[in-house]
Parts: sequence; structure tokens; C-alpha cells
Amino acid sequence: MKLTKSLLVGAGLTALPTLALAQDAAPGFDEIGPYIMTTLLFCMAGFLVFFMAAGFAMLEGGLVRSKNVTMQMTKNIALFSIAAIMYWLVGFNTMYPGDFNGYFALGGQTVLDAVGVSAADAALDYASVGSDFFFQLVFVAATASIVSGAVAERIKLWPFLIFVIVLTGFMYPISGSWQWGGGWLSEMGFSDFAGSTVVHSVGGWAALAGVIVLGPRVGKYGKDGKVTPMPGSNLALATLGTFILWLGWFGFNGGSQLAMGTVGDVSDVSRIFANTNMAAAAGAVTALVLTQILYKKPDLTMVLNGALAGLVSITAEPLAPTLFGALWIGSVGGIIVVLAIPMLDKFKLDDVVGAIPVHLFAGIWGTIAVVFYNGDASLVTQLTGIVAYGVFTFVASLIVWFILKAAMGIRVSEEDEINGLDMSELGMEAYPEFSKG
Amino acid sequence: MKLTKSLLVGAGLTALPTLALAQDAAPGFDEIGPYIMTTLLFCMAGFLVFFMAAGFAMLEGGLVRSKNVTMQMTKNIALFSIAAIMYWLVGFNTMYPGDFNGYFALGGQTVLDAVGVSAADAALDYASVGSDFFFQLVFVAATASIVSGAVAERIKLWPFLIFVIVLTGFMYPISGSWQWGGGWLSEMGFSDFAGSTVVHSVGGWAALAGVIVLGPRVGKYGKDGKVTPMPGSNLALATLGTFILWLGWFGFNGGSQLAMGTVGDVSDVSRIFANTNMAAAAGAVTALVLTQILYKKPDLTMVLNGALAGLVSITAEPLAPTLFGALWIGSVGGIIVVLAIPMLDKFKLDDVVGAIPVHLFAGIWGTIAVVFYNGDASLVTQLTGIVAYGVFTFVASLIVWFILKAAMGIRVSEEDEINGLDMSELGMEAYPEFSKG
Amino acid sequence: MKLTKSLLVGAGLTALPTLALAQDAAPGFDEIGPYIMTTLLFCMAGFLVFFMAAGFAMLEGGLVRSKNVTMQMTKNIALFSIAAIMYWLVGFNTMYPGDFNGYFALGGQTVLDAVGVSAADAALDYASVGSDFFFQLVFVAATASIVSGAVAERIKLWPFLIFVIVLTGFMYPISGSWQWGGGWLSEMGFSDFAGSTVVHSVGGWAALAGVIVLGPRVGKYGKDGKVTPMPGSNLALATLGTFILWLGWFGFNGGSQLAMGTVGDVSDVSRIFANTNMAAAAGAVTALVLTQILYKKPDLTMVLNGALAGLVSITAEPLAPTLFGALWIGSVGGIIVVLAIPMLDKFKLDDVVGAIPVHLFAGIWGTIAVVFYNGDASLVTQLTGIVAYGVFTFVASLIVWFILKAAMGIRVSEEDEINGLDMSELGMEAYPEFSKG
Repeated sequence: MKLTKSLLVGAGLTALPTLALAQDAAPGFDEIGPYIMTTLLFCMAGFLVFFMAAGFAMLEGGLVRSKNVTMQMTKNIALFSIAAIMYWLVGFNTMYPGDFNGYFALGGQTVLDAVGVSAADAALDYASVGSDFFFQLVFVAATASIVSGAVAERIKLWPFLIFVIVLTGFMYPISGSWQWGGGWLSEMGFSDFAGSTVVHSVGGWAALAGVIVLGPRVGKYGKDGKVTPMPGSNLALATLGTFILWLGWFGFNGGSQLAMGTVGDVSDVSRIFANTNMAAAAGAVTALVLTQILYKKPDLTMVLNGALAGLVSITAEPLAPTLFGALWIGSVGGIIVVLAIPMLDKFKLDDVVGAIPVHLFAGIWGTIAVVFYNGDASLVTQLTGIVAYGVFTFVASLIVWFILKAAMGIRVSEEDEINGLDMSELGMEAYPEFSKG
Repeated sequence: MKLTKSLLVGAGLTALPTLALAQDAAPGFDEIGPYIMTTLLFCMAGFLVFFMAAGFAMLEGGLVRSKNVTMQMTKNIALFSIAAIMYWLVGFNTMYPGDFNGYFALGGQTVLDAVGVSAADAALDYASVGSDFFFQLVFVAATASIVSGAVAERIKLWPFLIFVIVLTGFMYPISGSWQWGGGWLSEMGFSDFAGSTVVHSVGGWAALAGVIVLGPRVGKYGKDGKVTPMPGSNLALATLGTFILWLGWFGFNGGSQLAMGTVGDVSDVSRIFANTNMAAAAGAVTALVLTQILYKKPDLTMVLNGALAGLVSITAEPLAPTLFGALWIGSVGGIIVVLAIPMLDKFKLDDVVGAIPVHLFAGIWGTIAVVFYNGDASLVTQLTGIVAYGVFTFVASLIVWFILKAAMGIRVSEEDEINGLDMSELGMEAYPEFSKG
Repeated sequence: MKLTKSLLVGAGLTALPTLALAQDAAPGFDEIGPYIMTTLLFCMAGFLVFFMAAGFAMLEGGLVRSKNVTMQMTKNIALFSIAAIMYWLVGFNTMYPGDFNGYFALGGQTVLDAVGVSAADAALDYASVGSDFFFQLVFVAATASIVSGAVAERIKLWPFLIFVIVLTGFMYPISGSWQWGGGWLSEMGFSDFAGSTVVHSVGGWAALAGVIVLGPRVGKYGKDGKVTPMPGSNLALATLGTFILWLGWFGFNGGSQLAMGTVGDVSDVSRIFANTNMAAAAGAVTALVLTQILYKKPDLTMVLNGALAGLVSITAEPLAPTLFGALWIGSVGGIIVVLAIPMLDKFKLDDVVGAIPVHLFAGIWGTIAVVFYNGDASLVTQLTGIVAYGVFTFVASLIVWFILKAAMGIRVSEEDEINGLDMSELGMEAYPEFSKG
């Protein structure tokens, strides 16, 4: 109602009452347009990010062995569903608490805008609660999906899901509030546009803690230091998953503009689309060329992870870089993945799908890379944020994993692991008719 | 042109002609914004619902045995295509007939708005004909997809497709007009926001009639009451299909707001997104926990169907409930599926993918559940609608199935069924290289 | 700022400064709405067309034999990534050069709008550079995907990728500029709305040249004229790919309206959605019926290609036809595919996935069909465009393929081909656990 008010107050014309009334009845685009467009942005970006749940499921389902595919599917649909409930129950308001001490908040249930909310009651300078909640909710699910891939093929279902409850209801929202809830890191000037650190490295740290506490799969690392490859059962599915994640990332980064109703905002959303796509492409091409050089044969799983690493790398700052900036930032992400995946094996850290290099290492890189194109970001502050998220998430995750291990055990028996989780834990094969070689 | 008119009439200022003319040449957002945004909503929601065709195909293709996958793919792409043609030829105008007796209409071909339609000729209080037609068209295809899953693995291709012609061109549009075309149920106050009854239970009734007339698959039910499990051939594919359906449901329910150009409407769309997601999550988690309790092992196919049942349950009223309302309504959907799927087997009703529990039973539940959050709905009216759709669709479907059975036979020979429909009916295997166990 | 200016100039009222100022600060929908909506259209249509990369990958991955699936995945993600980089590096500005001689341009790197571009600096009559670039970029990748399917199962990885560099960086942008860059064909009145010729037949010509230079797969054509079928390994995946392509085509054709901010434009976008869907449906049904008639058994791969041929056929003019027009134009596409696929075998042109009939033959048909509904199009001009694109692309492609063949060889050894490209070129199987029949 800004235009109408300024008219009445500033001009005080008696000749204009009808105009004023008419505009009062029908607010202009400058008043309600941004709210409508941003709410639409959150809905659209939200369904794209939702679909990343399918992307993670397909990627992980393609990279595990066929005897664990049903389990991986079960985990992925369950973790998304649990995240949706926990984030409503407590997470969203923990993460966006309004006035708080800047470090720690515990929220309650999310309440949506009333049906058919009027312009007078809506947050016209932002978006509807429903759209905001939905958009933020699909983010937290991504964090949990990252963990799921790393600890695959040996973790029990229920301890994993309990970890997801803690991660999505408490750990992620509490640390997320430090930055996106207006907490201490935000005040310090930490910069993480769409969550290289807040989402991806948090998932990566939680995964790393899980991988350490769980230990590697039976037979993965020989006593002589030999690493036994355990190839994924379905690379077409893994490729599909990667394409779906890439698609979803347009929503992930584009929606994080948090506004679409002005010329500048919608242009920025499109700029983010172009940069996000470029970083993914650069990560993929880099991994392709690098594996050709290093191993004489391109490695498809590295190319897929290279694309994802490019995406994670650009996520902390998808707006400010030029397209060339997106290219080289994503390209470094691709290099990180190709070098880090075998390195993890040296430390006998058995990350089944490469989630830790992709989401943690490239997430750290992306958060650092902000300083190259965003003049307001300082390296010290970026490192502070990286360390803060790392220490909090890694320590909290370790504690939760150890409690779960002590209380109920987190790992299936060796026999069950060899037989596959599908038959031992679920009694159901993913591909019952296809003979296994 | 409302603003301009009121200006001229109410103020009569001679000093404002330029303003009036300028606004005449460039209508404001209050005039054309809702039309533009709602047309966009239908396009966006429409492509999401279109993609549900792929979701149904993957879900069904994953839940049938590998010897019937080519057939299931053929049926799904063919039924969507036939629905698209029939709905243009007669269905759309049958369902939305304008003035009619309220019970029965037969329409003709759909005619789109002219190219580059002017604001003066467009339905500025609604949306373009093309967007409306497209959005409604993808709904009818969903109804046919529901049938396809239930009658899988033993029905002949052509009788099934003829049934689809009747269903999408006549049965669904005629009964749909009672509610969404402004017919007698609508006048009575029946409430079904996005089609728990109008779409899902209609598909379910048609499927139930088909399952009864067809009879169960060879070997499914032993003489001693023993039920032989016939596990799906590809649970990764079934999971992908479920995620795609979940994604499409944002369009299914969100688009059914039928408006997006005001603060209230776009907020409602987002509210629907949040509730739809919550109901699906609740259905999935409920099925997960319930199968753990009942069978000591979580059942992925139940979890998938639980999510879908949650979605169907919230479809009759995705707007009015709180998030907690969506949670428990969806949760009851999950319970229904877990209990009803084995129950159908007791009656020797062989529904291959669980379509009847998901779409019919949860559809009835969702239609009843409207009364808890929508103050305008009455239980008696809701039950009236449920019964009306049930009687009409079930009886009409039975008649069509019996005619088809008498005229050309609807079931393949026992030998063909055992060999699989892919080789016997189509001469083409879906996975020709993978040895069958 | 047009409204404000006319107010001040035309009225010269001293009583209205506040109104003028207020409107100066907040431009109305008529000023910035079209820019915002069109930029959104490009983002939305762009992510849909992006997803076609996954569609092509799944379609091709499903239609090749399992021993070549990893290779097909690698090629598809690599070609998209390379296209993204090349189109930024040189392609976009080659294709849209601004002032040029109308025949030949060579551009440079694409530069996006500044972050938070102001309304004064933005192309308010069009859309943001980022959105435009992103939308055009995903088109060029489609062209390269077409080639990838045709030359599958025997081409080496790197020569193929080098061809992609030339195609996406130079050949496609140069010929594209003739029409969409405002070059000589555009001036002559050639009409190709979304690229039946500019995109699809260009991909088809490049593919045809590749197929000729490569020669058929080992064992495909016997000396006695016998054609050995080499059935695809995963028809569920191929069906998924087709549905994804169909989904993406709403963006492909709808986005090509290039505007969404007026009543006429958004209505046209929706009209295009409806026509695009109808053409695909008609192509699928036609192929279904025709294969039933010709071969007594419907052929799923023909139905899939029929849908795609319907889509290609309507791409040159998805706006002007009535729904009936879209139906018969798409239907002819379906006929073309069913007749042309065996015909190619007669000429021993081994197109693995049917890309040449779908994209080249139906692309030519669609370009001709423009004359039936677009009164401004002339058959002679349409044929001129078809021939111009054909001669240029076919000759340039032949030259590039021959140079690659001479310089590094483009075909794997017979032994490698028989063993499959996955093991011989990449050392990685797509389905390592499933025994091959």
C-alpha cells in the first residue's frame, strides 16, 4: 500500500479520491508483484529441489551393489519423509527463530499463513510462509541424503533413520540459524549464498563421522593396503541421478536468491542458472580429462561426481562470478573429486558413493572461492564459518553415532553384510529376477 | 479496464486524459496479472502432472515381472496418448459444458484461443483455454494410468486401450462434469478440491471392475488359500516412479487452486505444496513403521504405496488443513494401504501394483476427511458424492469390460501369460540380455 | 518509464508531482512485467530443455546393448558439458551477433548482465542475458545429443567429443545465425519457430554424415541383405527417456515464444503446450496402429520414436495450428518414422536409435508443414531453408568426420566393438552384476 499512502499524504489532492480508492482496491505490481513472484520462485525452486531426493536415490542406488539397492531406496524415501516431519515439528523455527541470541534456538511447529491470506496480513516484502517453509524443507533433506550415500551397504536401517531425526530436526537447523537465521556468523559477515557449507559440508561432516564410526565394508581394504573395487550395479541409474541433481540445483541455487519480483532479482536468478550450469559442466569436463590423463581411461563415476562437485563448488556464490569464474571454480571442484576419492581409500575411509569429496571437500572449496568474486567476503571469516560448521557438526555427529552404536548397534553382522542388506534387513530384492554374476 | 473506467466516471477530471489513455494502452497488473499468472500456473502444473505419466509407467514397470515390462511401457505411453486425443475430441467439452442439465453432457472438439489473443477477447478472470485444456487433460490420463497398473500382467493390449478410449472420452468427463463442470454434485455442495474422488477413486473403481472381470493371474492364489508373492522386477524403477508421482502431485494439487495472480491465491498454492508434501511424508513413514511392527521388516513397496496413499488422501482438501492435519490425514492413508493390500488378496482380487488401495480406498478416505477442516463440507454430501461416483463408474466399467470380454476377449491365453506378455503379445523383451533367475 | 514520461509531458500538472515520483520509483507491470515474465519463461523452459539431456541419455542408454551403456552415459554427460562451455566461449555470440553480414559471424565470450541489473540497464523489451543464454545453450546440446544416438556402439569417445566441439561451437551457431540471428534466411521469410530444421535436422544431418563415414556395426548387415536386429538392453529406460524428452519439449517449444508478459504471449505459450502434447500423442498412436497393421504386433520402440517424431514435426510451427492440425502433423511424423527406420536399413545406414528418421526426416516434414497453418510462410522459402541447412551441415560434418578419421581414427577395432565399448574404451561395465544372456 506504499503508493497509495504516499499519494494521500504527499499530495492531499481532493481531486484524486477515486484514483486513490481504485488503487486501494487493486494494489499495483510494485506492491504485490514481488510477493507473488517470490512465492512462485519458492514453489518452483522447491519442487526442483524436492526432485533432488529422487536424484540422490538413483545416484546411490546405481552406485551400490545390487544386493543393497532396496535398502538404499528405503533409506532415501524414508529420510526425506522424516526430514519433512522433523522440519515442521521443530526445525524450521529453530533455524529461523526471529529474535534470538544468535547461537542457539529451539523452535516449535510451523504455522502456515491463513487460507487466502490478504495482502494486509502477508509479508509483502518477502513471500508466503508456506512457500518459504517448503523451500527450506527440501534443503534439509538434501543434507540427510548426503549421509545416506556415504554410509551405505553396512549400516542398519533404524539407527540411520534416528540419526536423520537428530540431523534434520536439530543439528542442521541449529547450525543453519547461525548464518541464515541471522545468527553470529551472519553478523560476522560469513557468506554462503545457497549452502556449500551450511548444507553440503554439514552433510559431508555428518557422513565423515558416520564412516569413521562404522568402519569400511567387509573386504574393501586388504591387510596389504590393497583396495578392492566394489563397482556400482547400475551406471545408467547413477547417471540419471546425476542429471536429476543437476536439474534440481537450478532450484537450489536459483531459489536462494530469495526474490524474483524485480528486474534485478529475476535477472540474478537467471544469472545463477547460467553460472550453476557452467560450474557443473566444468566439473564434469575436468574430471573426464583428468581421469583420461591419470588413468588413460575416462571414468564415468568420476565424471558424474565431477559434475556434482562443480555444482557444490559454485553453491556458496553462484551469483557474483562471471561465467569464466563459474568455469574455473567448478573445474577445481572436479579436480578435488578426482584426487580425493582415492585419497580417502588411503585412509581406509569407505565412502561408498564419493559423498565426502563431493559435498565436504568441494563444499569447503566453494566457500573459500567466495572471496574471489564477492568483494564483501573475507577469507578469515569464510574459514571461521567452515571451521565452526565443521567442529559443531562433526563432534555432534560423532556423539550421536557413538550413542547409537552403544545403544542399539549401527552395523549389520558380517554375514548379513555379505548377503546384502536387502535380504537380511528387508527380505526383498530390488532385482529378484536377474541372475547375479 | 476497471481502474480507467472508475477514474473517468468518478472523477471527471479534464486534467487527466493522458493518464487515462496511457493506462488504457497498458493495462495494469490488477487487470491482466491474474490471467497471466493463472495461465502460467496451468502450464507449470500441467507439465508436472504430465510427468506423472512417466511416474506411473516407472512404478508399474518396476512392480511387474520382467516378462511384462515392455507391455506395461507400451500401455502407459499409449494410454496417455489416447487420453490426449479423446479429451480433445469430446472429453473436455463434455466435462466443462457451460450451461447444461447438470447430469449429462456430450461435448465436441476443443477450440483454443486465437493466436495472440487480445486482452479484450481473453477470459481475464480465469486463464487461457489452451492452459486450461492442457491442465485438465493431464488429469484424465492419470485416471487411466491407475487402471493400467491394477490389470497388469494378463490383459490384452487392445481391449485395454479400447477401455481407455471409453474412460477418457466419456466416463470420466461425464461424471467429472457433475462436480467440476458445475453439475448436480457441485450444486449440492460436494467438495473435492483436486480429485480424490473425481480422479483417483474413479480410476480405482474402473480398476476394480477390471480386476473382477479379468480374474487373478495364473498361480497367484492357490486352492488352499495360499497367496504366491510375485515380486516386482525392479524396485529402483518403482521408487523412481513414486518420486516422480510425488513431484507431479505438486502440480496436481497446487494447480487445482485454479488461480495464482493475487496474494491470497499464490499463498494458497504454496500452502497446498506444503500440505501435499506433508501428507506424502506421513503416509510413507506410517507404512514404514507399520510394516516394521506387523512384519518385523519394513516393506519398501508398502512405503512407496504409503506415500502415494498419503498423496491421494490429501487431494480432496489440500488447502484447508494445517500441516498437522495433512500429517494425520496422510498417515491414515498409509495405514489403509498397509491393511488393505493383504485384504484384497483374501478376496482373491489381484491388483498387481496396489492401485485399488492407493487410489480407491485412500481416495474415499480423503473425500471423507474433507469434513474435518473444511467447514462448508457435510459428511452426508461427501458420502453422496463418493457413492455416486462409485456406482456410476463401477457399473459403467463392468458393462464395458463385459462387452469387451464378449466381443474380443480381454485376457491372454494361460500359455501366453506364463511366457509373459512381452514375447507373446509384442515379440519384444524389455531386458533381453539379462538372464532371468 | 514510458507511463511516467507521458504523464509529465502530456499533462504538465503541478498537482501531480507525488504521483509521478511514486511511479518513477516503482515502475508498473506494463514496464517491467514482460521482462520479468520472459526471463522467468527462459529459466523455466531452460531447465525443462536441460532435462532433455537426461532424456536423450536414458533413451540411448536403453536402446544400445548393455556392453555399451557406460559409454553412452559418458558421451551424453560429456557432450552436454562441452556444449555448455563452447556455447559460452564462442557459440552464443556467433549465433546472435547483432549487426552482421547475414551469413557468417564468429562471436566471443558471453557476458551476463551485471548483478542486480537496474531496470534502466536491462533489455526491458526482452529478457536478461543470463536467461537468454541459458535457454539457447540447452538447445545446442540437444543437437549434439541427436548425433550421439545415431553413431553409438562403434565410435571412439574422443573423436566424437571433438566433433561435438566443432558442432556446438561453430557449425550450429553459424547456421543458426542465418535464421535466429537475423541472417539471410530470416530476411527471406524462412519460418522455423522452435527448430525443426535449425536444431533437429541439423543434428540429423550431422548424424547422417557420421553414420556414413563410420559404417554399420559389425554383424548388422549380412552379405545376403539380411538385417540382424540388435535389440536395446533396457526398454524401461528408453521409455523413461522418451517421457523426459516429451516433458522437456514443453520448454523447447513453449520457451520459443520468447515472451510471456502479455495476455497474448502467455496464451500463446499455453497454446504451444497443447499443440506440442497433441502432436506427440498423435505420433505415438499412429506408430502403434501402423506397426500393428504392418507387423501384426505393436512395436514399443516405434511408438517411442513415433512420439518423438510427432514432437519434432510440430516444432517448426507449434503455435499456429489448431489442435487438429497438431494431430495430423504429428501423425505424419509417426508414419515417417515407421516407414523410414526399415528403409535406412536397406541402405545399410546403421542408425542405432532411429535418430535420423526422428530428427532429420520428421524435421524436414515439420518445416514443410509450416505452410499449412502459417499464412506468411512459402513452400519455396521453406525448402530453401531445408536445403541450405542440409547442404551446409552435411558437407561440413562430412569434412570434420573425414579429418577426424584421417587424423586419429573414429572407429574402435572390431574386437573392441564385439567386446563392447564399456570394457574396451572405459574399463567399466554399466551392469557388472547382471549375467548377460
